[in-house]
Amino acid sequence: MRKQDVIAKLLPATRLPVCSVAEAFAPSNIALSKYWGKRDAELNLPVNPSLSVSLGRLGSHTRLSCIDAAQDEVLLNDQPVAEDDSFSRKIVSYLDLFRSEDAPRLRIETRNNIPTAAGLASSASGFAALAKALDQLMGFNSPPAQLSAFARMGSGSASRSIFDGFVEWQMGVREDGMDSVAVRLPANWPALRIGLLTVAAAAKPVGSRAGMQRTVETAHLYQSWPLQANTDLEKIREAIITQDFTLLGQTAERNALSMHATMIASWPPLLYWQPESVAAMQRIWQLRAEGLPLYFTMDAGPNLKLLFLEQDQAAVSAAFPDLQVVAPFVQP
Amino acid sequence: MRKQDVIAKLLPATRLPVCSVAEAFAPSNIALSKYWGKRDAELNLPVNPSLSVSLGRLGSHTRLSCIDAAQDEVLLNDQPVAEDDSFSRKIVSYLDLFRSEDAPRLRIETRNNIPTAAGLASSASGFAALAKALDQLMGFNSPPAQLSAFARMGSGSASRSIFDGFVEWQMGVREDGMDSVAVRLPANWPALRIGLLTVAAAAKPVGSRAGMQRTVETAHLYQSWPLQANTDLEKIREAIITQDFTLLGQTAERNALSMHATMIASWPPLLYWQPESVAAMQRIWQLRAEGLPLYFTMDAGPNLKLLFLEQDQAAVSAAFPDLQVVAPFVQP
Repeated sequence: MRKQDVIAKLLPATRLPVCSVAEAFAPSNIALSKYWGKRDAELNLPVNPSLSVSLGRLGSHTRLSCIDAAQDEVLLNDQPVAEDDSFSRKIVSYLDLFRSEDAPRLRIETRNNIPTAAGLASSASGFAALAKALDQLMGFNSPPAQLSAFARMGSGSASRSIFDGFVEWQMGVREDGMDSVAVRLPANWPALRIGLLTVAAAAKPVGSRAGMQRTVETAHLYQSWPLQANTDLEKIREAIITQDFTLLGQTAERNALSMHATMIASWPPLLYWQPESVAAMQRIWQLRAEGLPLYFTMDAGPNLKLLFLEQDQAAVSAAFPDLQVVAPFVQP
Repeated sequence: MRKQDVIAKLLPATRLPVCSVAEAFAPSNIALSKYWGKRDAELNLPVNPSLSVSLGRLGSHTRLSCIDAAQDEVLLNDQPVAEDDSFSRKIVSYLDLFRSEDAPRLRIETRNNIPTAAGLASSASGFAALAKALDQLMGFNSPPAQLSAFARMGSGSASRSIFDGFVEWQMGVREDGMDSVAVRLPANWPALRIGLLTVAAAAKPVGSRAGMQRTVETAHLYQSWPLQANTDLEKIREAIITQDFTLLGQTAERNALSMHATMIASWPPLLYWQPESVAAMQRIWQLRAEGLPLYFTMDAGPNLKLLFLEQDQAAVSAAFPDLQVVAPFVQP
């Protein structure tokens, strides 16, 4: 099903701005139980549900303003982005889904306060902020679930960045994907800490979209992934409800390693790890063997996201001096 | 089923040496399609068939001689091994399976000419050489398939080290395992080269036996391994028959990475790689992207075994100066 056909069922045929400026923020998110594999590449519908934690004030801020020009203008962190850059093209074609042809052109200003090279996906927070700002500008007044679905059409994991806290992206079953939306879980965990460990800033050799596709198409071991992902998500949800950090850490680490295992079993091999990634894993396992309750998760890149509790922050920071620590449930 | 019960069906009840000295050599082997997971831990019966290439003159030489003593004497590379060392205990309990209680004690002298720390399993060639020498000493005159089954009872992959060249270990279906034996494939490949790349000499944190068990018991992704292994074995056999090096290299590398993927998806995680292993893989992938037909396989350890053809030996050795190159089908 095409995106525009799904959207046509939900929004009025004529879509024009109701104001001249709108802005919104959306947080980055770290999946504790990962999204890996699409059952529909057009609508970004996943093979499995996923569960993430949003990173509070780390994320993307997007401002949309109507301009008197023939083309949209895209700025990223105050720098103009060329019209034919893939970043601009993605944003413009996304906007085109939601506006009438004669709608005024827009200036799209996105600022990411995500640490450079930390390997955090900016597309998740970016498309979530864009979807929110656009909804305001056009006066759609979308309910949160619809906003989540719209964000998903830009980038799968953006569906989760619509919300703060713990967020579950339900996979859904409908062909139009309108039940494949995220919901915020009614739970907080003030002592939870996430450490962003940058071991390598090298660009990814294969992007997430292409990587997922290769895994689904070539990795025999991927057949077992949906069951693993569903099982892990249940455990993560239970760990959050019972505030069982060991269960949270073990399940998140195991889930991430299983996802990387499906990549490694792809052909050509998809190994997002650098030698430094392995060294960091070994250090974490050593610290854990010494009694420190420290776990990690990883996305499709070389960097690690450490999971620990407030009480162990000094010990963890001593072992990883360059760690950037996020407290997702603490208001700054 | 117990080993001694299987053996009792095949050998006479009274088992005494027919000569006072016997010796045998057995080669190391590198699996191109791996053995990972037992369906019977007592008899070392595998979950899947495997296919290896033997390493010519690299392997183990074992000499058995009757001695007038109360205990067996074990020597490894001319050094006495203590009676309570696990190496001695494994050999003595293996010998006990095949000899009457009143049989004379033995001196067991094993010499391995396998490069130190190259990560080649010495248990495969060691138990194969021991099984061969014992068969001579006791006058069993076992046919090759029976010898392979006996070697398997010492170490699974020893079943393959009974033979030279390309060897297939059929998984079998019988409860007593007597159809789980290796056979030599009727094919040679004189231009095939295997490069032993030692990137780390560190002892393995978890041995193969325990590693397999953990994978089978904890890795969801292992469910897909038997199908993968069977598919890969068919491809390797086809590659050998048609002398299709690309198919051989791709399948062997993919099979090894899939096996490691099942380990990585275990809990606690089983990562046999060191940072240097990842660096070596990346170097191989880079050389391959530049046009060099170079592939690798890996066992449960940090080192790589490179696969290439004679014509590329200079280029491969230039990239990996410390590589030890083996020509399995060339008589020295």
